[in-house]
Order: sequence, then C-alpha cells, then structure tokens
Amino acid sequence: MIIDDLIEKIIEMQNPACVGLDTAPEYTGRCEKDAPNAWASAIYDFNQSIIRAVHDVVPAVKVQIAYYEALAGIGGMECFRETCAYAKRFGLIVIADCKRNDIGSTAEQYAKAYFERKNGWSYAKYVDFLTVNGYLGTDGVAPFVDAAKENDKGIFALVKTSNPSSGELQNRKLADGRTVYECMGDMVEKWGEDSRGKYGYSRVGAVVGATYPEEAKILRERMPHSFFLIPGYGAQGANAAMLKNCFRQGGMGGVVNNSRGILCAWQHASGNDRTSRQAEKYARAAALKMKEDLLSVLGEIHA
Amino acid sequence: MIIDDLIEKIIEMQNPACVGLDTAPEYTGRCEKDAPNAWASAIYDFNQSIIRAVHDVVPAVKVQIAYYEALAGIGGMECFRETCAYAKRFGLIVIADCKRNDIGSTAEQYAKAYFERKNGWSYAKYVDFLTVNGYLGTDGVAPFVDAAKENDKGIFALVKTSNPSSGELQNRKLADGRTVYECMGDMVEKWGEDSRGKYGYSRVGAVVGATYPEEAKILRERMPHSFFLIPGYGAQGANAAMLKNCFRQGGMGGVVNNSRGILCAWQHASGNDRTSRQAEKYARAAALKMKEDLLSVLGEIHA
Repeated sequence: MIIDDLIEKIIEMQNPACVGLDTAPEYTGRCEKDAPNAWASAIYDFNQSIIRAVHDVVPAVKVQIAYYEALAGIGGMECFRETCAYAKRFGLIVIADCKRNDIGSTAEQYAKAYFERKNGWSYAKYVDFLTVNGYLGTDGVAPFVDAAKENDKGIFALVKTSNPSSGELQNRKLADGRTVYECMGDMVEKWGEDSRGKYGYSRVGAVVGATYPEEAKILRERMPHSFFLIPGYGAQGANAAMLKNCFRQGGMGGVVNNSRGILCAWQHASGNDRTSRQAEKYARAAALKMKEDLLSVLGEIHA
Repeated sequence: MIIDDLIEKIIEMQNPACVGLDTAPEYTGRCEKDAPNAWASAIYDFNQSIIRAVHDVVPAVKVQIAYYEALAGIGGMECFRETCAYAKRFGLIVIADCKRNDIGSTAEQYAKAYFERKNGWSYAKYVDFLTVNGYLGTDGVAPFVDAAKENDKGIFALVKTSNPSSGELQNRKLADGRTVYECMGDMVEKWGEDSRGKYGYSRVGAVVGATYPEEAKILRERMPHSFFLIPGYGAQGANAAMLKNCFRQGGMGGVVNNSRGILCAWQHASGNDRTSRQAEKYARAAALKMKEDLLSVLGEIHA
C-alpha cells in the first residue's frame, strides 16, 4: 500500500524529506529570456540532474504542476510527465502537487488523469500521490479517494497551508468551537478512515505548513491517522525546530518538502562553481544538509 | 474592460448563459472505447460543432480543463487550447474552469499560464476568465488578480458551489455569525474592490451554484459588485425559477452555465436523428430553449 511504501522508504533512508521540483526557468540557469519554446527541455534536463543528485538521499519528489502549465500545456505537460517518469525510474515516490478540486463528475476526470493505471496514456503510471483542495466537501473529494483505493494511490488534502494569508479563512473560529482548519482536518481523517495501512496511517493525508507550529501541534494530535505533507521549510521561512510539531514520537507522521533550497543551491556557490552545471553537486549537498538538520531535531526515525 | 464586455454581450444577445465544454469522450458519440489517442481529435471536432451551433446564441463558453487533463496532458492540453482558440475566433468570451489555487509564488505561475498575454505561448491569447479557489486566502489569489488587471482578464472565485456536499464546509457557521461561504464572499468582494467596470461589477467574480437559491439570495445582496458564474442548471438539478435569486433587477449580475444539457442534447433525439452528427442541430435548439427558459423568469435584461 502506497502510504506504507512511503513510510518504509522514509525509515530506510532515515529521511522524512521530499524535494520539490517547482522548477522555474530562471532556476536552471539555462533559459534564455525570450526563448520559451526551449524552456521545457532546459527544465527537463535540469530536473534530471536534480533527480540523479538526490535519488538516494530522499524518498520522494513533489512535482508542482503550475510551473509546467506555465510552459503552455503542450511542451510543459510533456515535461511534467517525463519528469515524473524519470523520478519513478530512480525508485522515488512521486507526489503531483496540483491541488485539484471540483464537483464529483469533474473530479472523476482529474482522478482519471492522475490515478487510473489502466489508462496507459495518463500520468498515473508515474504519480503516487496527488494534492487536492477540499473546499467543495466530500462529494468533490470522493472520486479521488475511490480512484486512489482502486489504483493504490494516495492524496494529500489542504488543511493548514504554509502561506502568510492562510489564516484568513483557515483560522476562523466556527460557532462549534473548532477552527476552519480543524473542521477540514476532521473531514480529512474521515475520508481516510477505511483506507489505513499497517502503520496506522491512511492513504488520505493532509497538507500542513511548517510555518505554523501551533496549528501543526493541534492537527498532529487531532489527526492521528493522517500523514502530513509539510511545505514551508527553507525559502518560506520554517526551520527544523518549527517542524517538530508536525511529527509524532519516533520522527514519524510527515514528509517535509524543500524546493528552492535544493533547486537553487548552486546559486549560492562562489567563484567558478556558480554555474547551473554544478546544480547536481550543490543540490546533493543541500539535500544531505537538510537530512542532517531534520534528524538533529527528530532523532532516529522509526514506526 | 473584460467584465463590461461580458455584460454588454449578455445584453446584446439577451442571454445570460454560457455553454460548458466539459466534453467527456462518450458525449461525442465518436470515441471508440479503447482508442484514447484519437479522443483529443474527436473531442476537438465535437467542440467545434458545438461552438458553431451556439456562437450567436450565447455570449460565452466555459471550458472545463479536467476533461482535457484526463486526456493525459499532451493531446488533451492541445485540445483545450485549440478549443479556446476556436471559441475566440467566433467572438465568444472564454472562461477557463480550472479552479486553480496555491501559495503566491506558485499562483504566479498559473496566472502566467492563463493570463499573461505577452507570453504568446500561453493560453492567455484565448482565455478571458479563470476560475480559482480561495481557500488559501488573499496572497494565494493576489497573483491572479494582479495578472488579471495587467492583462484585462477576470476571475471567478468559488464561494458557494453547486454540488450536494458543498455545505459541509461552506455552510458552517462562524463564531462571528457569518457562514464560511459569506466569509469567502466578503473576501471576494474585497479582492475586486479596486477593479470595477462601468456597470459597477468587478473583474473578480464569484461562483455561486444555482442549486442553492437561499444562499444565492444572501450572496446576491451581500456582494453587489461581484458578477456570478452560476453552475447547477439542468443536469445538476436547478431550474430557471431557482436561478432568479442569483440575479438582480433587470436580469443582471450573473451568467448561467449549462454543459451536459447542450452537449448531450443529441442523445435525446429519436430515430435516425439520434447520432452525434446531429449534435450541432440539437445543441443549438437546446441553447435557444435555455435562453427562452431564462428570459421567462428574468424578463428583459438591462444594465
């Protein structure tokens, strides 16, 4: 079961981290300003070097589809799919960060795109997890959950996001005493209740930002069966100490994403090394440093 | 300004309707079950016939991207783009129904994909409006609003959706007395406050389902400057009488979507006419009937 695979890979590698392939053209150091047609291939080349650099350090990659849609569909989506495929070839767990959401009949179409293995022409061969947005409620999420069960995939639903304004709606108090994010968290627990693996976690997980440690603490207790996808480390401002609340004892219960800190590590090199041809070397060093940083706070990771 | 263009086209055509191109392969009657590679072109052909059928009856089309993503990116996204382009060639306003959402830096990428005219390679040449999901709050929506201003585009943000479970979160009462959907509605009004056109409506509109007339009534009063994109008519269960609350006097303030009722109209024909080759004829008749139905409730439409 995919959530068990993720957990076992985290334990085996002693690293609850994933690398975010939110690859903007400028991160690659290889994109001419006005040659967008060439960007998809530059980005794919760059992604390949990052994947080679980190495949034996991290258990997973998260591919942020917006950066590929921005390449205008055709070349961009091919680049997205090939990036997922390349990561899979290296044995990585692949999280497609798409935050999809719609009414049931339409959500079915998204689920088909990302999860239905029998459609050989879909992304499903290469994608293990998909992020979704549950604002529409149960019937908008059910098609993702059903397709995830059928194809051994998983989802991460937005609960408390890492961005500065996330509290505007998510931290509102409800009349019943809960916050909106707690209400969403309860819904996510419920969506996953009949889909738990051997470590007690469900294939329906939650996105919980590292940038809000207080909220993370509340959610970690409130959602014992939900694995967390944790953005916000690094460029968005969260450090390892802030992350601790996202985890349970034994460093278990979540996977921390880092995008810019890995992709752009080469930009912090000096002298002749400050070239994207060194991206692989610097990405690897940054991934190893992140692992060390996480473990310094979490200790040895076990189920 | 795009919202004024939409309003003027609605008045000129006396029809506050849009046709949803949520084209599932089976709607076209032309897709062999196991030939997905051919689906994109069958769907594009079918969409062209629908657009020809309705271009002088409705002011707008709404293209639901999930159905194109389900065709696995490459052929599917080309089909999406070409469909939008074809609708534009016939002078239609094009709403891309994508419900995109993310943190600011990522939302910028989506905005680039759908709105940035200067990127000739993006969908922006053909898309006028984009639907978004505001669960992340202001900084996740701001890039869409900014790019909309810069490129004369518009957005429709989810407020009260048309699906059966939409109340699970959206109808929760907040401690301050508002519901979640009212809170979201207030945010949407605010996002659009410095971007209003000559009829008083903003380029930041709201998605409000026709299936919830009580909520629509509350929102129509609460959001005087927000134009509504109204799903739920027809296959989802709302009739014209239920729609009235989505509009102000003069039948102004919203545009009603109909997808399956138009696309699948040919499937209700009898005898030799029950073939997708007759889709154009039956789609046109259905669109004209919908116009009549709406006007019977709304009366003459004026600003």
